[in-house]
Amino acid sequence: MKSSKACGVCPDTPFSATFAGSGPVFEVDRWVLRAFLKGMGSPRIGVRLWDGEWASGDPESAHQLLIRSRRSLLRLVANPLLCFGDDFSAGTLEVEGDLVGFLEEIYRALAQPGELRRRYGRLSRLSRSWWGNSLTGSRQNIQHHYDLGNDFYRLWLDDEMLYTCAYFPEFGVTLEQAQAAKMELICRKLRLKGGERVVEAGCGWGGLARYMAKNYGARVRAFNISAEQVAYARERARREGISGVEYLEDDYRNISGECDVFVSVGMLEHVGPNNYRRLGGVIDRVLSRSGVGLIHSIGQDVAQPMSDWLEKRIFPGSYTPTPREMMEIFEPWGFSVLDLENLRLHYARTLTHWLRRFEAHAAEVEQNFDANFVRAWRLYLCGSIASFETGTLQLYQVLFSRQGNNEIPWTRQHLMDPEGRHGTV
Amino acid sequence: MKSSKACGVCPDTPFSATFAGSGPVFEVDRWVLRAFLKGMGSPRIGVRLWDGEWASGDPESAHQLLIRSRRSLLRLVANPLLCFGDDFSAGTLEVEGDLVGFLEEIYRALAQPGELRRRYGRLSRLSRSWWGNSLTGSRQNIQHHYDLGNDFYRLWLDDEMLYTCAYFPEFGVTLEQAQAAKMELICRKLRLKGGERVVEAGCGWGGLARYMAKNYGARVRAFNISAEQVAYARERARREGISGVEYLEDDYRNISGECDVFVSVGMLEHVGPNNYRRLGGVIDRVLSRSGVGLIHSIGQDVAQPMSDWLEKRIFPGSYTPTPREMMEIFEPWGFSVLDLENLRLHYARTLTHWLRRFEAHAAEVEQNFDANFVRAWRLYLCGSIASFETGTLQLYQVLFSRQGNNEIPWTRQHLMDPEGRHGTV
Repeated sequence: MKSSKACGVCPDTPFSATFAGSGPVFEVDRWVLRAFLKGMGSPRIGVRLWDGEWASGDPESAHQLLIRSRRSLLRLVANPLLCFGDDFSAGTLEVEGDLVGFLEEIYRALAQPGELRRRYGRLSRLSRSWWGNSLTGSRQNIQHHYDLGNDFYRLWLDDEMLYTCAYFPEFGVTLEQAQAAKMELICRKLRLKGGERVVEAGCGWGGLARYMAKNYGARVRAFNISAEQVAYARERARREGISGVEYLEDDYRNISGECDVFVSVGMLEHVGPNNYRRLGGVIDRVLSRSGVGLIHSIGQDVAQPMSDWLEKRIFPGSYTPTPREMMEIFEPWGFSVLDLENLRLHYARTLTHWLRRFEAHAAEVEQNFDANFVRAWRLYLCGSIASFETGTLQLYQVLFSRQGNNEIPWTRQHLMDPEGRHGTV
Repeated sequence: MKSSKACGVCPDTPFSATFAGSGPVFEVDRWVLRAFLKGMGSPRIGVRLWDGEWASGDPESAHQLLIRSRRSLLRLVANPLLCFGDDFSAGTLEVEGDLVGFLEEIYRALAQPGELRRRYGRLSRLSRSWWGNSLTGSRQNIQHHYDLGNDFYRLWLDDEMLYTCAYFPEFGVTLEQAQAAKMELICRKLRLKGGERVVEAGCGWGGLARYMAKNYGARVRAFNISAEQVAYARERARREGISGVEYLEDDYRNISGECDVFVSVGMLEHVGPNNYRRLGGVIDRVLSRSGVGLIHSIGQDVAQPMSDWLEKRIFPGSYTPTPREMMEIFEPWGFSVLDLENLRLHYARTLTHWLRRFEAHAAEVEQNFDANFVRAWRLYLCGSIASFETGTLQLYQVLFSRQGNNEIPWTRQHLMDPEGRHGTV
């Protein structure tokens, strides 16, 4: 084991001992590998092939990749953005040491201009499903991810089952505190008041709706197309005796009625850029004259598709917009953008908490699913940490109102607690 | 005089007594006027024609317009966005009562979908000069406005000669306090530190550069193409013995060297949307790896040209971007947007201070220029207040860094003073 700046959470796995079965390594294999790494922007990693010997890259790097067969090497060269994930999940690719650190090296190399991700990105864009997130397509995509079972998510999310970026007023607070602080921050940004009618688009397991009803006396209609999540949210609100919140199993495009506050946390990633204008139209239809809204979403600096693997295996139909693309929600309808905050590093921190809990229950997850599933989710969580750490992903909260609403806040003073802190613990 | 919700600053002028010389009003004149007002979205104003009699609109409205000749009526109908301003300046159009309130009525009516401004806007867009803000074109445009003479601006700006939106931590603070608070807010957003190298693009009379050098020990290179402003800024820095600031009479496109902080306050309005990507390229060229930047600019919710009059007579070559358009500065170069704040109402407040001081010196301005100049500037200041009040204009501060810069602030805690206030008075 080499020394590494490990995240301290993901398992520091040694390579498995069995290299057998793939025959000898030829010079042409090493040549292909070298050309491939160069095309990837020469990440600072070392690579071993199926004979167990160092083949290319930095043999002293803390980040070592093992490619266990020629088939895996060729698959990786042919479609790295899909096959790295698939073969890592299948166990035919292994990473020695800190997986987050390894992936950060890869992302940093790929972020260089003109590198592979950009080129592959363009090719793969053609086959993307988010160009048409239809009503039934959306439902299938959402079920793929969110209907894995509440029991699975309960293992590693916080008590309120929030599956979106938390807000850490201080770095060291617990995940539960940070999720509560996130909900409080959103309510303050919206200056939520008792009795206000809230529409929430994409409510997950219903935590924010509960928070708004319980702590602010808001009347919330919360929409979601994941049947399992809605059932959980309804049951939990009933059990906790929370009135003033109604969970509707329906698509955001079907939202009707009027509201004073529109909020959507972590749904935009599933909407697809071709529907942003339409989402704005829904908001325009339902938001009162003096209403305000907030959209919280993963984003990115430069428009490019998600990695193929993430988009195909983990989040079908998803896309993370740039701020420019997000503005397609607001500008066609004349909304005023009031405030944008980037919480990228808070998502890295949130994911580190999730990963720690996930790893603590890895054996249980493997029992309920299988080892491939555990490796796939490990890669997804570690990859997400690496993305937010390296800045290939961002997290935006955008506050908006209708044009000419002069009830907007004068300063940001209202975002603070009585002790003058940005976020209560 | 009818009762009006006057801004309390602009003169509550009665119509002048002389209506003579334009002959009788015919039914066709009234018909043309009625059709015109309908096309304008039926603003809640009353209109009298050259016989002094009410002709259309609401005769009881606090906002009354007098059109003093058929020629003026026809000019207004033919090109309202240019000729209202020109004829108001010439005195052939008059507004009775509160000019800001009158203009707010007009802007609210025009903001309705499908109304005249949009249609006229499209026509007039063809002839716009900002499509080509060349190096010499920019210089001429800037001289038109900013080289009117430092003595003129000194009459109604604050002591530091800041000609951009101030920040009022509390509504009632003085203009001087609010301009200092604005500079402090910008320095805090940038987390400016002693010895840091700052590039300022478009420095006006040099106030922010002085503030950064004096209060933070920054080393500022401030660029401006207005010869008068640069001369003033140099002389003042010399007189006040401020070292660490260098004023360069040069275009932003010629900025070279490296800096830790890039800042631009109120220049983007003169850059033109076709140059946003290029401005981003300049920033990309000069900003250090861990550098941050801030752009402060007037903007708007929906992309449309400035009013013809403002663009032709007051600010040649200017354009106010939407947030989406502003992102063209950042996205092509992979910058991360960290924070956007909308200070629209602070600009209405700033302009009210300027208008009050301008009116207190109107006689002096008329002596140095003429009565038309005074009316034109009155219209410009009142029209700007009305624009920020009604939301046809916005004011954005956008903070950004390079991608993957993990030295970005964790929360917004650093924006506050030790007393936990958002902005020191």
